[in-house]
Amino acid sequence: MSGFAAIDVIRTKRDGGVLSDEQIDWVVDGYTRGRVADEQMSALAMAILLRGMNPGEIARWTAAMIASGDRLDLAGVRRPTVDKHSTGGVGDKITLPLTPLVAACGAAVPQLSGRGLGHTGGTLDKLESIPGWRAALSGDEFIAQLGEVGAVICAAGERLAPADRKLYALRDVTGTVEAIPLIASSIMSKKIAEGTGALVLDVKVGSGAFMKSEADARELARTMVELGGAHGVRTVALLTDMSTPLGLTVGNAVEVAESVEVLAGGGPADVVELTLALAREMLTAAGLPDADPERALRDGRAMDVWRAMVSAQGGDPDAPMPVAPEVEVVRAERDGFVSAIDAYAIGVAAWRLGAGRARKEDPVSAPAGVVLHRKPGDQVRAGDPLYELRAEDPARIPAARSGAADAVSISADRPAVPALVIDRIG
Amino acid sequence: MSGFAAIDVIRTKRDGGVLSDEQIDWVVDGYTRGRVADEQMSALAMAILLRGMNPGEIARWTAAMIASGDRLDLAGVRRPTVDKHSTGGVGDKITLPLTPLVAACGAAVPQLSGRGLGHTGGTLDKLESIPGWRAALSGDEFIAQLGEVGAVICAAGERLAPADRKLYALRDVTGTVEAIPLIASSIMSKKIAEGTGALVLDVKVGSGAFMKSEADARELARTMVELGGAHGVRTVALLTDMSTPLGLTVGNAVEVAESVEVLAGGGPADVVELTLALAREMLTAAGLPDADPERALRDGRAMDVWRAMVSAQGGDPDAPMPVAPEVEVVRAERDGFVSAIDAYAIGVAAWRLGAGRARKEDPVSAPAGVVLHRKPGDQVRAGDPLYELRAEDPARIPAARSGAADAVSISADRPAVPALVIDRIG
Repeated sequence: MSGFAAIDVIRTKRDGGVLSDEQIDWVVDGYTRGRVADEQMSALAMAILLRGMNPGEIARWTAAMIASGDRLDLAGVRRPTVDKHSTGGVGDKITLPLTPLVAACGAAVPQLSGRGLGHTGGTLDKLESIPGWRAALSGDEFIAQLGEVGAVICAAGERLAPADRKLYALRDVTGTVEAIPLIASSIMSKKIAEGTGALVLDVKVGSGAFMKSEADARELARTMVELGGAHGVRTVALLTDMSTPLGLTVGNAVEVAESVEVLAGGGPADVVELTLALAREMLTAAGLPDADPERALRDGRAMDVWRAMVSAQGGDPDAPMPVAPEVEVVRAERDGFVSAIDAYAIGVAAWRLGAGRARKEDPVSAPAGVVLHRKPGDQVRAGDPLYELRAEDPARIPAARSGAADAVSISADRPAVPALVIDRIG
Repeated sequence: MSGFAAIDVIRTKRDGGVLSDEQIDWVVDGYTRGRVADEQMSALAMAILLRGMNPGEIARWTAAMIASGDRLDLAGVRRPTVDKHSTGGVGDKITLPLTPLVAACGAAVPQLSGRGLGHTGGTLDKLESIPGWRAALSGDEFIAQLGEVGAVICAAGERLAPADRKLYALRDVTGTVEAIPLIASSIMSKKIAEGTGALVLDVKVGSGAFMKSEADARELARTMVELGGAHGVRTVALLTDMSTPLGLTVGNAVEVAESVEVLAGGGPADVVELTLALAREMLTAAGLPDADPERALRDGRAMDVWRAMVSAQGGDPDAPMPVAPEVEVVRAERDGFVSAIDAYAIGVAAWRLGAGRARKEDPVSAPAGVVLHRKPGDQVRAGDPLYELRAEDPARIPAARSGAADAVSISADRPAVPALVIDRIG
């Protein structure tokens, strides 16, 4: 009987129909419990990708994924809770400075994060570059740290949207990641189950993002803002550019180091700009519109929260970061202006150097990655360094070198640099 | 690496692209060997169903499935070889009288058959109603019987298109059966690998067939005729009606009994008509256009080959067939003419009575099935028997009764009965 019903659900979507609430509840629950097989769910995921889902189906699918596990209750936390989620980009370390910054301004940030897969990095992988730091917290540790420090970045527990955990791993190997209904319900089921009161989404668009077109990114943003509202989570989204890597570093330890620079009041202009833009949105959504995140960066309060947050999870905020023994500098072949740095090519290069993983069981290299010396708009002369490739294993350099060879474009004239924040939806 | 490449193939088809020869060879071989996972192949099958394949892709896919196993060599058989394949229908026992009939006219018929799944029956399940008959033959037994008797109906060996064997089972549970490129390549890879010199296809259209529309059935027929020609197998197709069950019996033992009636020179007019139409096509394709199958039915030669064929595989052609202890007769509620008998509804009823299986491991009931007392065009009076439901287990009757309740339509005026053979393609 279960096989028969799974086929009915698949056929309905395959033929362009609308799934009923009962069908959605049944198939999500059945998949979580193993009654619906992986090969049935992947066929359904492909049908959803190609046929789409209407807003009612997406809302029900999200609710079913939340109901597959527990919904955390953060009512005991005295501060207003607000979280942020990025759809993933290259060099996107914003969670690292942003979480302590927003906590320093009076909110509590319950940031349940993931690991990298493919060409985009993972927040937990980056933080694990810090000696001693651990990603796994118990539910009680999570709540306690959120109350005391105001900031937690940790791994999601097994009981948080287990349907999504299983489906995400399946989509990753079956070419069904890029379905807007599935991306939206995956992100929002986890964030709603996590119990946050408000949510700011950073929806990336460009070569280094999963959404390559602005129209798709807008649709994804609108879908998620609606889902948040329907579940009582105040949600807004910023549409931001991901054609260029964020900041000057792409990897794990190098991104932590750059985040610490931002918390110390320095750091690359684009990382600071996006951190502050997202902080302002989060503080407004949390009911703290008068907070001044720029000042909290300047006066060291954000750095204090960072240190407390790292220490609370066993990390040593003063420990030296691991350094890559193998470094290759790539230089400009001619004079001009850097007109573009392709985020996808740099992301793949960092992945090949060891910063990312091919299979979810693989370890990542802490010091591996790419360090940019120039950004779009910068003037260069032939022979100037453009970027460095860093690795623990010299055998990883050649493939990364050839992958990144055309990543940096040089033009004769000074180029126009695209705006980082494209739009606000919510 | 293998996961990465499988995703590339899936994405290409998902996004509407054309798979390269290398991609097709790689994915079919990888799936056969287990390097490509079931959940990856089912996502690809759904993408193929929704995006389609061009003739070049279908030809390559078919060739890759043939290459996944052995291609039989029937050169040692002295007679011309010709086979027939039906896309599956309700009450379609034509293989049973047809195979010995064509052999009686001078050709050799190497019929590798399957089992039923869903609402259509399987030739091997039907023959297994005969006490002692066995479906499994070794390669040597197969060749020897083909030479001596001229007719073999048996199960395909493990080495015949193993890629198809695996893919067929997967499609059955993932809602990806109804893809014309996959149906065509599945049928043709097995028939080409089997080594037959010529092939006649019976492509069914109507409620009881997998192809419900004539346009789809035509496309499937044309695709298969082209594939046969490309591999040196002379192939023609008849497009035939499957809105009404064939003959008066739907089940296993009841269909064998009806087939023996045809071989004895009797039997229902539609079964005789289609058997002779297909026999003429097969004999022409085999280079025996002057053979007279009508005479071979009349003079007992076809029955002689049937008896030899059954005996060669351990069956007793004189053994009494199993009889169902439970019989329920359904009667006409008013006077009029039978205007239609829905093949799908009758097929499902027979399946519920035990003639078919829900999972491929299930046994089938030999005597269970539906026996029709009237066919479209027949006049009836209220109270006349319309059909019988037969089962071994009385608990199976109610579900079959309700499923078949609206299967027979009765009109006041004499209806037009559709032609059985709709067209010839080849």
